Amino acid sequence: MLNDTAAPALGVGMVGYAFMGAAHSQGWRTVGRVFDLPLAPVMSAVCGRDPAAVREAADRLGWAAAETDWRSLLARDDVQLVDICTPGSSHAEIAVAALEAGKHVLCEKPLANTVAEAEAMADAARRARERGQRAMVGFNYRRVPALALARRMVAEGRLGTLRHVRVHYLQDWLVDPAFPLAWRLQRDQAGSGALGDLGAHAIDLAQHLTGEYLTGVSAQTETFVTERPLPGGPDGAADGRLGTVTVDDAAVFNGRLGSGALASFEVSRVAAGRKNALTVELNGTLGSLSFDLERLNELHFHDETLDAAEAGFRRVLVTEDSHPYLEAWWPPGHGLGYEHTFTHQARDLLHAIATGTDPSPSFEDGLRVQRVLAAVEESAAKNSVHTPVLN
Amino acid sequence: MLNDTAAPALGVGMVGYAFMGAAHSQGWRTVGRVFDLPLAPVMSAVCGRDPAAVREAADRLGWAAAETDWRSLLARDDVQLVDICTPGSSHAEIAVAALEAGKHVLCEKPLANTVAEAEAMADAARRARERGQRAMVGFNYRRVPALALARRMVAEGRLGTLRHVRVHYLQDWLVDPAFPLAWRLQRDQAGSGALGDLGAHAIDLAQHLTGEYLTGVSAQTETFVTERPLPGGPDGAADGRLGTVTVDDAAVFNGRLGSGALASFEVSRVAAGRKNALTVELNGTLGSLSFDLERLNELHFHDETLDAAEAGFRRVLVTEDSHPYLEAWWPPGHGLGYEHTFTHQARDLLHAIATGTDPSPSFEDGLRVQRVLAAVEESAAKNSVHTPVLN
Amino acid sequence: MLNDTAAPALGVGMVGYAFMGAAHSQGWRTVGRVFDLPLAPVMSAVCGRDPAAVREAADRLGWAAAETDWRSLLARDDVQLVDICTPGSSHAEIAVAALEAGKHVLCEKPLANTVAEAEAMADAARRARERGQRAMVGFNYRRVPALALARRMVAEGRLGTLRHVRVHYLQDWLVDPAFPLAWRLQRDQAGSGALGDLGAHAIDLAQHLTGEYLTGVSAQTETFVTERPLPGGPDGAADGRLGTVTVDDAAVFNGRLGSGALASFEVSRVAAGRKNALTVELNGTLGSLSFDLERLNELHFHDETLDAAEAGFRRVLVTEDSHPYLEAWWPPGHGLGYEHTFTHQARDLLHAIATGTDPSPSFEDGLRVQRVLAAVEESAAKNSVHTPVLN
Amino acid sequence: MLNDTAAPALGVGMVGYAFMGAAHSQGWRTVGRVFDLPLAPVMSAVCGRDPAAVREAADRLGWAAAETDWRSLLARDDVQLVDICTPGSSHAEIAVAALEAGKHVLCEKPLANTVAEAEAMADAARRARERGQRAMVGFNYRRVPALALARRMVAEGRLGTLRHVRVHYLQDWLVDPAFPLAWRLQRDQAGSGALGDLGAHAIDLAQHLTGEYLTGVSAQTETFVTERPLPGGPDGAADGRLGTVTVDDAAVFNGRLGSGALASFEVSRVAAGRKNALTVELNGTLGSLSFDLERLNELHFHDETLDAAEAGFRRVLVTEDSHPYLEAWWPPGHGLGYEHTFTHQARDLLHAIATGTDPSPSFEDGLRVQRVLAAVEESAAKNSVHTPVLN
Repeated sequence: MLNDTAAPALGVGMVGYAFMGAAHSQGWRTVGRVFDLPLAPVMSAVCGRDPAAVREAADRLGWAAAETDWRSLLARDDVQLVDICTPGSSHAEIAVAALEAGKHVLCEKPLANTVAEAEAMADAARRARERGQRAMVGFNYRRVPALALARRMVAEGRLGTLRHVRVHYLQDWLVDPAFPLAWRLQRDQAGSGALGDLGAHAIDLAQHLTGEYLTGVSAQTETFVTERPLPGGPDGAADGRLGTVTVDDAAVFNGRLGSGALASFEVSRVAAGRKNALTVELNGTLGSLSFDLERLNELHFHDETLDAAEAGFRRVLVTEDSHPYLEAWWPPGHGLGYEHTFTHQARDLLHAIATGTDPSPSFEDGLRVQRVLAAVEESAAKNSVHTPVLN
Repeated sequence: MLNDTAAPALGVGMVGYAFMGAAHSQGWRTVGRVFDLPLAPVMSAVCGRDPAAVREAADRLGWAAAETDWRSLLARDDVQLVDICTPGSSHAEIAVAALEAGKHVLCEKPLANTVAEAEAMADAARRARERGQRAMVGFNYRRVPALALARRMVAEGRLGTLRHVRVHYLQDWLVDPAFPLAWRLQRDQAGSGALGDLGAHAIDLAQHLTGEYLTGVSAQTETFVTERPLPGGPDGAADGRLGTVTVDDAAVFNGRLGSGALASFEVSRVAAGRKNALTVELNGTLGSLSFDLERLNELHFHDETLDAAEAGFRRVLVTEDSHPYLEAWWPPGHGLGYEHTFTHQARDLLHAIATGTDPSPSFEDGLRVQRVLAAVEESAAKNSVHTPVLN
Repeated sequence: MLNDTAAPALGVGMVGYAFMGAAHSQGWRTVGRVFDLPLAPVMSAVCGRDPAAVREAADRLGWAAAETDWRSLLARDDVQLVDICTPGSSHAEIAVAALEAGKHVLCEKPLANTVAEAEAMADAARRARERGQRAMVGFNYRRVPALALARRMVAEGRLGTLRHVRVHYLQDWLVDPAFPLAWRLQRDQAGSGALGDLGAHAIDLAQHLTGEYLTGVSAQTETFVTERPLPGGPDGAADGRLGTVTVDDAAVFNGRLGSGALASFEVSRVAAGRKNALTVELNGTLGSLSFDLERLNELHFHDETLDAAEAGFRRVLVTEDSHPYLEAWWPPGHGLGYEHTFTHQARDLLHAIATGTDPSPSFEDGLRVQRVLAAVEESAAKNSVHTPVLN
Repeated sequence: MLNDTAAPALGVGMVGYAFMGAAHSQGWRTVGRVFDLPLAPVMSAVCGRDPAAVREAADRLGWAAAETDWRSLLARDDVQLVDICTPGSSHAEIAVAALEAGKHVLCEKPLANTVAEAEAMADAARRARERGQRAMVGFNYRRVPALALARRMVAEGRLGTLRHVRVHYLQDWLVDPAFPLAWRLQRDQAGSGALGDLGAHAIDLAQHLTGEYLTGVSAQTETFVTERPLPGGPDGAADGRLGTVTVDDAAVFNGRLGSGALASFEVSRVAAGRKNALTVELNGTLGSLSFDLERLNELHFHDETLDAAEAGFRRVLVTEDSHPYLEAWWPPGHGLGYEHTFTHQARDLLHAIATGTDPSPSFEDGLRVQRVLAAVEESAAKNSVHTPVLN
């Protein structure tokens, strides 16, 4: 757990400082205190449009400087890595510009709001890679230790041939029809609703954990509450008017992975009582794995090769030294939380930059997810017909 | 819990005595010992093709007589109710004949192997109803107390407007490719595979619990292991030859209920580690319910109307006197098992016969399920396109 | 699962027909329908003091005859086995008389209300054993399949050397101070309260599962609600008067097993929300087991010999053919209920009688429990001082 | 979540930088980034005996300076608060000196190794309080949000009159007899074993959550593995010799709270498969609460006042804005980890210092725990006799 104090510095500049910005900041502040790093991140500057607010955020979150124009942030010499935490509509422009300005990039998920944007970003990342730059997309759940362990076990063949992949991501913050029409409910900013927000995670995990790609999908999407209060009053309060919700509340879709395994997905923001229920189950010929983000320190493993009299899903508390990322944290049984995924993400990106290897997930991986999202929307618009994912 | 000893007798004749026959027998033997009944069932005769085996089964299971031809069973004066526990391919013929012979009928699920058969059976039941006969289909899980409680709570409006219905039924007995080609894996006898066996339960529950019907579905089915050992050796042992599996191993499908709620389904016989995992979740605007058949004495209820600081899924142990069927059993906390559903089914059918009311589920309900099964297969054959359920 | 129809008959006579009587009846009715038996039990007669009520119970529960004096029951030629389901205060007299009358005996737990009674019963059983008679005490939870599996695994050495045994049995039916002063709350009939009712099960399981005996205990007992309504009104309704509760509501005690393992116990009837929470945990040097009667089809096993990265408590669904008693029941995943323990108890007693072996648990085992109960009460009366169990 | 940037600074100096030191550092680094604080903590200096190691720790953990003598740390002008993270044997000397030097003190638990030491510390704290200094003991689990919520609910009367308090703290890192004889296994440094380490937490929680004190206890302690390898080799490796374990591996004890409720405790470091299983259950006349540190984001609440048909333990995910500490963290469902308790502890101590109020838990609270620990050891030495806690 020693920190190499001689590690060269790497300046980080972050765009956006809301929920994701706060989470990324916690990652950048913490990573060097916990992990031994090849590069020492320096929190150079944060960027936002409101001068007073961004200044306050810089102080609170620990950034040395504040900028109000992302182009200025990109122009700073003390920024070698641009961390994009804005709504999806601005990802492509900022990320491409940052890459063209010679910066490494970490971009929040989903990579973009359209396949065309994502392709442009992946192209820019490809060109930048030749110049030694790295581009990563923020599917942070790959770095929940239990899911990293799941990936390791699948890769080691512990599940045999996969038959089923089942990923649900259920939340309930839109159950109340009085919840206002925030930017996440507007297509022009968010791209889509539960689909892009939650479905992107679900799809990325299905592809990452299995090491396979979805070849096609059949889908339904739904907006149950079609009008919501406009937050036009002071401090985002309702102003009495209603606006139209332009994204989905929920999506259900099924598909197939390259190996022929069946994959099923369900994402919703109106599943009462489910707060952050990203559940994953993989069933293979030699075993099964089961996970729930609401209990993120646990992975449940069924070993089909055991005597049936003693077999069953076993609750592995993923807090052992031998578990991914855990060598740097606390003794067994002392669990981690949601925010640790951002610390792990920072660690892995710094290693990728230092070693000149592609980070995981790359922009190419983000594009792969984007293509599935597009196929889902196309299938939903075409009477759920099975729609190939164009790769 | 008093048994009215003056209750008139009702003779029962059962066709088939394998797994379902044993379970039904347990129900018939027990129902009058536990519940107060308007009619006293008499286990008159059981029917099977092998004379020695059916004789042995009669003795073991408690039937007074044995028959080797179901037509003879129907001809018996001491049989007023015919209980059909044979593979699906023979349901229509026996059930229609029994109804035409003036008998009440209880028929195992799925009602039939085709919609045409199910329609003929529903027609026969309709005609028989006018003569005072009753016909019930054996969707026994309606009578798991926790699911009966779920039905009651939905009907009382505790969940508000439904948004999601999610029913999975996962088993794993076909994970091993050496499992033989039993009758349940042959289309001519079983009609379909996981779909008809497990999917029929899933569909019936979705419709029953919500009080709504599926209007259309989009589906995929899959047979992962396409050839299996033929059980041509002595006592059904493998004889070294392989035969073709003609039914599905798994099916995933989504649909919509009449109210617009999204319904999602997954059934499989190759989900390693899941033994009998019929899981049901309903999400509504006022609350949610969750159930797992592997823990059948529990119903989990989230009440969205509570203060968020104290809300969450609560584990109701469905063993209170005030819970469905429980007034006749043991004190709180003393759980029931799988077989109790058959005792409850017998009770409810006897009440329906005695009171001249339609049993639930009726043959019409069984036909409704059959039509969804047909739409699933049609959608799966047509590239998963959304396929209306023809009602 | 074949039933040997040539099995000789064994007439059973039961004393008492309340909760336990109903449960035992279900066992006697069912055992021969499910298990292959060496002796065919015949439900000859049931005995109770109220002529009309016992006659009604006989009809309902399936007993051929009704008696109003247990001595008459013992005198019947068609009774070879006497099944005692009365309150503890009458156990000794009936059991000793039955044994002296040449009958086999099954006696509900706790074996007696005092050590002296239990010793007399064990003496009678010892003498009767020489005449080929069998005596069993009804610690039915030994026959929950998951606990029978636990016993098997401990005996096979899967847990290594035991360090901890932890048994809690929590119920909540006395939380309400308006609950009436039933016989179970009166020392002269029940012997003790939660201690004798729940603690007897807990102690027997601790000794049975480990194969060891408690050498001493340190204890506290408590009666939180000291006066309750007298059920002097019609049908046992409150009559407005209060009576004194003469038994404990709860007991906590710790002790040591022969091997030096620490054993801890807690029993209560005032643990709000715990309906029938008999929880058992065993921790050994090679593994641990955990059980909860509210989920009686599950046994949780931690195998300490596995790689820590994959270790954890695994939920074994105890419904496999290879599990104790399960070969006779349903396919995997189709769970059993509380009452099945009585069917298993009947099976094992009939085998013991047929093979001339001592049943488990014997009266000697019941006496061993009684001695611990006495030590608990003595310790509680002596300022919790560690009190040896006199064996 | 705004941070008042004008908050006056408060210099912190920490003694010890192992497990607890790392956890406290994470708290000090993070607290001002997340919570709005009245005082801005400055991480002035850390102290340890090995110059190179403490220098490295300072850099890694974020302390501005390093000291090798705690007296020098106390002499620093930039240290107003001394945070003591050393083994228990040095707590008293350092804490009393720090208080006498005019510093506020945060001292890890258990407060001391003996009652005499703890009394001296509480005396020093009392005198210091009059000078405006604050002294807190690090029972960090009071600040798990779920347990803070439990405290709030008990205080609000949601459980009614308490009947049972049940606290177990089970770990398994000493199952392997090859685990070396670390300082935590030596009485002269650690004071006691599982008792002082885990039991102190258990006792503090029982007293804190209920707002009552234990009046007496009856106890057993045990050392199962009496000799362990001495870590005399390089880097603490075994050197082939064995040393005597001078502390307990496990302790079981029962007691009574002021109100008469029964309290039961079990702590162990040899409970195979239990990694950090601090489980708490409170049963009252109006409800019950249940908690497990291995699932620290959950509190289970049974509301006895609900209709029994809908009652049961409900799993409250303690991640709502309205839950203690949660207003500063992530959206609902995004769980916290073990280390957050130290951030919360820092926050609450800073508020206590700023507002001139006694922190919770105070040294007086720590002394109260110490007295129970002493009573446990005395009872264990006196044949488990009930031993009053001298307050």
